[in-house]
This record gives sequence, C-alpha cells and structure tokens, in this order.
Amino acid sequence: MTWTLHSAWRAGAPYRVRIGLNLKGCAYDYAAVDLIRGDQREPAYRAVNPQGLTPALTLDDRTVLAQSLAILEWLEETVPEPAILPAAPLDRAMVRRMAGIVACDIHPLNNTRVGRYLQLEMGRSQEDYVAWMKHWIAEGFDALEPLVARHGGRFSFGDRPTIADCCLIPQVYGAERWGVGLAPYPAIAGVAARAAEHPAFAAAHPDRQPDAVTA
Amino acid sequence: MTWTLHSAWRAGAPYRVRIGLNLKGCAYDYAAVDLIRGDQREPAYRAVNPQGLTPALTLDDRTVLAQSLAILEWLEETVPEPAILPAAPLDRAMVRRMAGIVACDIHPLNNTRVGRYLQLEMGRSQEDYVAWMKHWIAEGFDALEPLVARHGGRFSFGDRPTIADCCLIPQVYGAERWGVGLAPYPAIAGVAARAAEHPAFAAAHPDRQPDAVTA
Repeated sequence: MTWTLHSAWRAGAPYRVRIGLNLKGCAYDYAAVDLIRGDQREPAYRAVNPQGLTPALTLDDRTVLAQSLAILEWLEETVPEPAILPAAPLDRAMVRRMAGIVACDIHPLNNTRVGRYLQLEMGRSQEDYVAWMKHWIAEGFDALEPLVARHGGRFSFGDRPTIADCCLIPQVYGAERWGVGLAPYPAIAGVAARAAEHPAFAAAHPDRQPDAVTA
Repeated sequence: MTWTLHSAWRAGAPYRVRIGLNLKGCAYDYAAVDLIRGDQREPAYRAVNPQGLTPALTLDDRTVLAQSLAILEWLEETVPEPAILPAAPLDRAMVRRMAGIVACDIHPLNNTRVGRYLQLEMGRSQEDYVAWMKHWIAEGFDALEPLVARHGGRFSFGDRPTIADCCLIPQVYGAERWGVGLAPYPAIAGVAARAAEHPAFAAAHPDRQPDAVTA
C-alpha cells in the first residue's frame, strides 16, 4: 500500500486526514503543497485535484479522494478498526454535528483562499482578516463547547478519538495561531490537552510535517 | 412519528434536509424560523439549537439533531430505503466529495450571518456581498461540474438521487437567486432540470414552504 497524502503543514483540512490516517495505523507518503507559493493553483496539483484545495489522497491505483470529511468517512468504511465513529446512529449524528461545526461553520471562512479574497478583492487589512477569523472561531467554539462538555470524556465524544476530534484539534491549532484563547472553552481545552499526548495526534501536528517552516 | 423540522424557506441547509426527508418518505411538521427577523438568535430557537443556525430536527423524544449533513447521514442509517448513498465505499466517497464542495466550500461563505458580518462589521455594500457570493458559487461549480459530468446520470452520481443532490439543488437555487447563470455548467443544469420534475425535490422547493414570501 502506497497512499500519498497531498498536504500542507498548517492547513486545517489535511491535518484532519493526517490524524485519521494515524489513528487507523495507515502509513502514507507525504506530498507537500506550498499554499503560500500557490502550488495549489498550479497545473501539477490541479491534475491531482482540479479544485486546487488540500487535502487529496491518492490510492495505489491512482484513484484520488478529496474533501477531508469524505476521506475520513471512506477511511472508516474501509479500515473499520479502530472506529472513529461510535456505533449508534444518534451518537454518530452527534459526532458528525460536532465535526460539521468545525468543517462547515468555522474553517471554510478562515482558509487561504478566503483570506486572499478579503485582502486582494476587498482591500481589507491583515488585521481585519484576523478579526474575521477570530469571530468565526469564537462563534463556532461557543456552539461546540457545551456539546463537548455534555458528550465528551477523554475526547470530544466519549473516551475514544472520533472524526469530531480529527476536526477539532486542527481548529484548536488555528485558534492558538490567531490568538483565540481557550479559557472560555474548558471542555475543548481538556480534549486538546489529552490529544496532544496521543501519538496519532502528536504525529499529525503541523510542526512535525516535512514541509513545516519553524522559526 | 411526529418529527419537527426547524426550517427557513430560502436557506440552503434546511432545504437539503427537506429533500432528504421527502426522498425517504418521512413526514414532518414544519417550524418556520424567520431569518430576516432574526428568530434564529432569539431564546426560543436557541433552546432548540443553541448555535442559532437552521436546520434542526426534533424527534419524538425531543432529541434534537443539527447540522444538515449529520442529519442526512443519520437519516440514511435509520431509514435505509430508498438509499441516498451508493453502496461501494469509493462511490460513497465521491458523493460525499460532491456534497462537501457545496456544504464546505460554497454555502458557508454565503449564508445570512456572513452577509451580516460583511455588511455590518466590514461596511461592505450589498453589491460587494453579491459579488462575493457569485465568486464562491462559480468557484465551487467549476469544481463540481466535471465530477457530475463524469459520474452523473439522471442525478449527480448515477441515476438516483443522493446526498450530493440534496446539497446541489439548494445551491442551484442560490445560484439563480444571485444571478450565477448555469450556462457554463451543463451537467449541473441537467441534474437541476430533472430534479425539478422529481416530487421529493419539487415539494422541498422554497416557494412551496409555509413560510414562503412570494411576490
């Protein structure tokens, strides 16, 4: 098996998939996409994912999967153990609800292409863009915190990592990067602290990727 | 069974769930949330979904489901027939990829709360906001069109409606509303034309909801 994950070290969506692959014990080759340089808009990457977004996962037969949630669901269906969704439908709905808060309500507003639009097309300052990001992160975490407090244990839903954590932990990284403190979110902060100790999450951290640029 | 769908006639995400419920043949009561008046931010609705977003689906035992994709997945798991996901994992991944392009890459940038932020916090004109929406719809449809052309039949994936169509058709409504023509997207336009003839989609159309405001 030689899967290739097209990833960018700091981007939230590929980070989710790295966590999922690590949780499942799936090895993969790492293909770096430099989002600052604009690799995602170049023909070489468009040949992999015409949408020009990361992640994409190339399988042995060159089939390409894209969209992080679709990849995580596919992974759960094809590599069932250890499960990253609970068994009962209502529980699965809660995990997917948590994942959706991050993947549909926070992150889409905060990624590179949106920042480019706000700055290049609307002429907003970097400061305005950071305020914008912090606004959506806070609004999303406000929604997520009571759900995690109610349904969480060691992780966002119960005691084992799920797709909710695959989404949450990269968003916590984003929150810290942009200066959204976790003090109002003790349940989220607790999950993040435990995830940091978990090898699958630790190995997926941006700083540990081959394309990491650290000071 | 007396489920209640908390919905707003024109909003994209509850429209998805209306289609899914109709496809499955599930009857439901309709609870209108007036997004213009701001019902979604009032305590009565916050008691249903603290996040203040539509849709929410209240079940017989008062359990509340939220996040449209989570609701559709739950529906597929609990009311399996007729299926709204194909059987094979790679096919399911493609349907979820298509759904993700709408639900993660287009719609989150175009909803009421984002429009409010751009206009109230950033002081942008309605014209700027419409240009913004058209930009993201076009970018998403550019990505979706070749996938539908390749994998679609009567619907986005094959000949039967899937979760991809539950997401796509409301986005086509949004595209028409904001003036994004479908001429560059013949595969999407074909699916939309066939969906308009399908009773589950027709009954879910905004104009046919109890809270519709038509001229």
